[in-house]
Amino acid sequence: MTLPTFPIPSPLSSADTADRLVLGIDIGGSNLRIALADSKAKILQTWSCDLRQTPDPASVVSLIKKGAHVLLSQVSVPYSSLVACAAGVPGITDTDRGIVLATSYLLGWRDVPLRALLEDALRIPAAIDNDVNIAALGEFHATAHDTRNFVFLAIGTGIGSGILINGQVHRGETFSAGEIGYMLVPGVSEIPEGKDMPGALESRIGGTGIQEQWRAVWNPKLTQLPNDAAPTAIFTEAASGGALASELMNTSARILAYAVYNTALILDCRLFVLGGGAGTHPAFVASIQQHLNARNPYAPITVVPSTLGCTAQLAGAVHVALEIAKRHTAPL
Amino acid sequence: MTLPTFPIPSPLSSADTADRLVLGIDIGGSNLRIALADSKAKILQTWSCDLRQTPDPASVVSLIKKGAHVLLSQVSVPYSSLVACAAGVPGITDTDRGIVLATSYLLGWRDVPLRALLEDALRIPAAIDNDVNIAALGEFHATAHDTRNFVFLAIGTGIGSGILINGQVHRGETFSAGEIGYMLVPGVSEIPEGKDMPGALESRIGGTGIQEQWRAVWNPKLTQLPNDAAPTAIFTEAASGGALASELMNTSARILAYAVYNTALILDCRLFVLGGGAGTHPAFVASIQQHLNARNPYAPITVVPSTLGCTAQLAGAVHVALEIAKRHTAPL
Repeated sequence: MTLPTFPIPSPLSSADTADRLVLGIDIGGSNLRIALADSKAKILQTWSCDLRQTPDPASVVSLIKKGAHVLLSQVSVPYSSLVACAAGVPGITDTDRGIVLATSYLLGWRDVPLRALLEDALRIPAAIDNDVNIAALGEFHATAHDTRNFVFLAIGTGIGSGILINGQVHRGETFSAGEIGYMLVPGVSEIPEGKDMPGALESRIGGTGIQEQWRAVWNPKLTQLPNDAAPTAIFTEAASGGALASELMNTSARILAYAVYNTALILDCRLFVLGGGAGTHPAFVASIQQHLNARNPYAPITVVPSTLGCTAQLAGAVHVALEIAKRHTAPL
Repeated sequence: MTLPTFPIPSPLSSADTADRLVLGIDIGGSNLRIALADSKAKILQTWSCDLRQTPDPASVVSLIKKGAHVLLSQVSVPYSSLVACAAGVPGITDTDRGIVLATSYLLGWRDVPLRALLEDALRIPAAIDNDVNIAALGEFHATAHDTRNFVFLAIGTGIGSGILINGQVHRGETFSAGEIGYMLVPGVSEIPEGKDMPGALESRIGGTGIQEQWRAVWNPKLTQLPNDAAPTAIFTEAASGGALASELMNTSARILAYAVYNTALILDCRLFVLGGGAGTHPAFVASIQQHLNARNPYAPITVVPSTLGCTAQLAGAVHVALEIAKRHTAPL
């Protein structure tokens, strides 16, 4: 069941492993990924496994415990070196009480006291947060270190965002701040979506929405791409001048630029980091920036692609775990 | 030049005036208003004057000094009882440095060190902030005391908002958070507005926008209202069943509900207090609430009319002045 581990960023030295270590955990809808990191947030080793057959909280916590032991044995350090952990989960998370309030259907969790489950199983202090918030913290350290106010936009099948205000995650009244996948901008459907259905914005420019529109306009005389092309393939064709693909990318970029603009107006944040395969495509990012430049807000808005890509959540979880370690033990 | 003073909220007692007092100041585009208040934020007396002939900073500060002396003499207490003041200004305000960065054309200020000017003239500690932020603080104390996260929406000719997060005004990276008059929602123009022009949202549903639309659909066979009716008159006719007025109010309410919804998605704020003549009209507020209820966000959103009306800014300024007094002197 164990998937291949991620490449080790750099060869291990004895100095790395003599340190006190933390775990950054990314609980996804289908996969679990764990990073073992040192006190400088350097990821020493990662481990991952499939969660599709065992998405219940007890099984996931058990797998995390197994992963922790595998990782520690791989770097040949005792379990006692582990001082804290933090996990990102794809759902609404009460970070104060350490409870996952709700996740999407893939995990199907409701009111899971994940922090306590992790602390009981691993015997170390734990923290939990929404995965996009965790990824935003990862990008904050990697991409956005020149500002303390920025928004991380995760663009996949759905669209979510993590908001940092004065260097702190803004979670809101009910731990659901940044749900911009539901935003209403010119060009999206005004019909209220049903319960647990995708939001207006993500229906239009999330991965599935872009693919639906591609199928609707697809014509084999006008493109060499298949009618089930991925958004990134469409954007690459747009960059090489394909008219059909350019039209779709431009419309998607304009709509996303509206959502970025609205968010910037409310928060007065000037930097947006885009994540996800589509979100980091250079042609798409450039097109969004063009649409933003055509407007005249009080200060320029900049969109940049994520520098961490799919490791943003692991990197962010490592930073949160290090914060927890600082609070619970002597300074690392 | 002095306009009639506002009604005194309650008869003065010796207990009120024996106290140390503060000034709340509201610098508007056309009028200056000043409130003298006691340490319980009770407004004892107000004074106002016209600013249209003398909108320059030095004249305004001089008028504030004059107003302070008039107010103190009216309640027969010495100048030494005055311990702090705070002023709201219609523009982007650097609250850290006490500088008004820019106001609308009515005042035409740029980079005015208003806090220092007030402190020099009045010889008491001063604070300054954007007028909508100041009004939001007033509403926070009067209307929104059950939550520490809420948005005050000022709906006049333009539309602005003041955002409170954890009981603190959220000002953003460049002191211009909450500029939702520029928000792009379904139903507004997508054409970028020129420099210093009204934003997309306020062009459509600000006072002038509503009146323009009324003139466009106005037909004396279908309404008894004149073709230059005020938004509040249109909403009152809508409430009594006028079809033409109902259609316009409903469309305006739907568009404003979209802006409220988008703001709630980003901030995860659940309470919106609406100010301004149109914003506090019961039929309009009810229609906005209906449109919000038709959507399914993670938690219900509530819109309520301001309870302070046009005194929100004075009340807010009084609260800010009391905070400043606390910081600079022994507890009041």
